[in-house]
Formats: sequence, C-alpha cells, structure tokens
Amino acid sequence: MFRQVSFKELMKMFGVGAVALVLGVEWLDWLTRRLGFRRDSRLKEVLFFPSPQTCVEHLFTPDRSFPCACPLPHGTETSFSRLLGHLLSACVSLDLCLFSFSHVELSRVVLHLHNRGVTVRVVTDRDYMAIIGSQIGTLRRAGICVRHEMSTAVHMHHKFALVDGRKLITGSLNWTLTAVQSNKENVMVTEEPELVRPYQKEFQKLWEANDPANHKPQTKKQAAK
Amino acid sequence: MFRQVSFKELMKMFGVGAVALVLGVEWLDWLTRRLGFRRDSRLKEVLFFPSPQTCVEHLFTPDRSFPCACPLPHGTETSFSRLLGHLLSACVSLDLCLFSFSHVELSRVVLHLHNRGVTVRVVTDRDYMAIIGSQIGTLRRAGICVRHEMSTAVHMHHKFALVDGRKLITGSLNWTLTAVQSNKENVMVTEEPELVRPYQKEFQKLWEANDPANHKPQTKKQAAK
Repeated sequence: MFRQVSFKELMKMFGVGAVALVLGVEWLDWLTRRLGFRRDSRLKEVLFFPSPQTCVEHLFTPDRSFPCACPLPHGTETSFSRLLGHLLSACVSLDLCLFSFSHVELSRVVLHLHNRGVTVRVVTDRDYMAIIGSQIGTLRRAGICVRHEMSTAVHMHHKFALVDGRKLITGSLNWTLTAVQSNKENVMVTEEPELVRPYQKEFQKLWEANDPANHKPQTKKQAAK
Repeated sequence: MFRQVSFKELMKMFGVGAVALVLGVEWLDWLTRRLGFRRDSRLKEVLFFPSPQTCVEHLFTPDRSFPCACPLPHGTETSFSRLLGHLLSACVSLDLCLFSFSHVELSRVVLHLHNRGVTVRVVTDRDYMAIIGSQIGTLRRAGICVRHEMSTAVHMHHKFALVDGRKLITGSLNWTLTAVQSNKENVMVTEEPELVRPYQKEFQKLWEANDPANHKPQTKKQAAK
C-alpha cells in the first residue's frame, strides 16, 4: 500500500483533483439554478391586485396583546398587507416617487415611519398632488419633505418606492383606494442590486432636479404665458 | 525531496486541499457578487422615459442597404429604441397586457411580429380600448386575438409584455405617445424566472377569465341596469 511519490507528483494529483472538484461544484450550481431547484436568495416577489380588504392593524401595533375589534377579516395575508409589511420594514429611509397618492392607509404607513425616525422623501406629480383626497398635504403638514415635478414633463408617472435604499417596490399601482381594491395591478418587490441601482439614481436625479431652491418663483405674467 | 506517503494520507491531503479550494472559490464568488464586480448573466435592464425622438426604421428593416431619409436623428440608441428592440426579439409569442395602447410605432411592432408569424395575444382595458387613437381596432382588423377585461374590476391597469414567455417587460409606461415622449416613466426588462413566472400566470389567468365564450352576451335590459 506504500509507494514512492515525488513532491511534484503529489502537487499534480492535488491540483487535478481540486480543479475537477471545483468544476463539478460549479456545474452542479449552474444545473440546479437552470432546472429551478435552487433559488437566488435575493428577494424577488410579485404582488397582484385587487387585494381583498382585511384588517392590517397588527402591522402597526405588533406588540398589542388584545385583538382588534374591527369588522374586517383578521389573520389573512393579502397583497396589500404584504405591501404594507415591505414598507414598514424601513429602518433608515423611504424614498417615494409617486404619480398619485390618496390611499389613507398607505399615508398612515408613511407617517408612522416618519414618526419612527425614518427619513422620508417624496417626489410627486405637479397636477395630481392637488386633487381631492391627495395625501400630499397631510405628509407636508407632518414635516415630510415633498417635491413635485417642475420640468416640462406632462406627468411624473412613476410609482416606485425605495426602502432603506436597497429594496425596490415598483409596478403599475398608484397609491389610491381604487388601484388597491378595484383595479388589476401589479407590484414587484426586489433587492436585486442591478434593478435597484437605476431606480436609486433616477430618484436622486428627480430629487435634485426638483429642488425648489433651483427654481425661481414665476411672476404672474410668466405664469399666464 | 522524497518521503513515504500512505494511500490514506494521500487521500486525506487530496480531500482537505479540494475542500479548501472549493470553499475559497465559493467565497470569492460570493464576494465578487456582493461587491458588484460580477453580474448575474440573466437580463436585467431598466429604461427611463421620456425618450428623445430618433429614427427607428433600421429596427424594422435591418437588411436595407440605403439609409433612411427621414429628418429624425439617426444612429442613436434611446430607451424607446431599446424597448422596440426587446419586443422585436420575439420569435414565437408576444403576450400583451395593456391598459391603454395608442402608440402607432408600438402598434407597428406588434403588426410586424404578427406578420412574421409570432403568436400575439392582447388583454386590454374595457373602457380604454375604445378611446380615440386606440390601436386595439387596428390589431383586431389584422387578425390579432384581443380580449378585454370582463370582470367587475374598475380598470385592467397592467402594462406588461411577455416576449417568447421568458422576457418580461413591465413598468409604469402606458403604450401612448405622451407616455413615451413626455412623461417620467420606467420600464424594467428581465429574464429572471422568479419574476417572469408570476406575470406568465397572471396573463394566462386573465386570458382565460376574459374568454368571450365564457361570457353570455347581455340583453338590453341587463345592460341598462
């Protein structure tokens, strides 16, 4: 069972064996991904709407010992409760780029995060921020920084959110009651850096471009043109 | 430089070396992904709008030898030309789930693919398919299968496309001229199966739910209710 082996031979065997093992592991890795047996661990979730109405009180007060007495169904997870959960996971920042925002429960989430010390920034559409039921005024009164589109663009039509700068929430859903409860809508939630990064850049671009300090107030004559 | 090595010792060295190498490679793999040095090879692209107007003729007639004589800028890649390129990459099928569709160039793409033998299916909104400038009638007259939302949903507000069942194009962009040329909009293009699959299922669900064969025509009395 013993034989003379040179150091060179030993290293050769070691090397060939190791390379074969690495190639084997990489091939297995590729195969399991390809066949869908294994998932990339980064968050990728798709939510579809309309979402049934359920009680979401537990998301705001998770430590409460007594159950909520409201007449809505309890204990059911829906697309809407998942969306709220993702937003409420913010610890540091919440950047919102929203065409229209009139949903009271979503406004409550934003105010809740603001009160918890999360830095909230909102970019919204010039025209839609003033429509009846818009929550933009409520956010502003609470001290949240809101900027509106100031360029010549017809509409700031984005509907995306960035949670802590690393979780992207985007899709067709405007933050309105009709969208959540009555429309066919989609929302994608992902932490994929290649997808999150462009939205981060876009938000920063819009945030800086719509800084009121860079825009002179219009005179009455100019506004009438 | 020679020493006696037992087969057991040899195997042990081989094993330890190989495991160390595999762990090292896996760690490097994780590190390079984490630091963003290496990209997942699956398509992930984000396009922002408005898009400048450029000539897109070359996308429809790539073999043409003479240059296009139109007055638009040539040879520039834009978000819109990228979007057209992704749609024109369809070989087998194109599934569209669109709230509003009035963009003539995008309609041309769909007709082009239909004429090339690509199976096109369209699900659209009940109300918006009949607005002035809608391309839905043009698609229907060309023989493309179009179904509209028949449920009690207020709007079918999705704006997504599935190319060959594996490339997802989704975002805030309605297929209108205003959206493409004048609005702030986003479109995500991805082949990530975990994101594509839910949209495939949603399309199939909507396609089957809105099959006219399952819906009895309303009588005048019912419709008036």
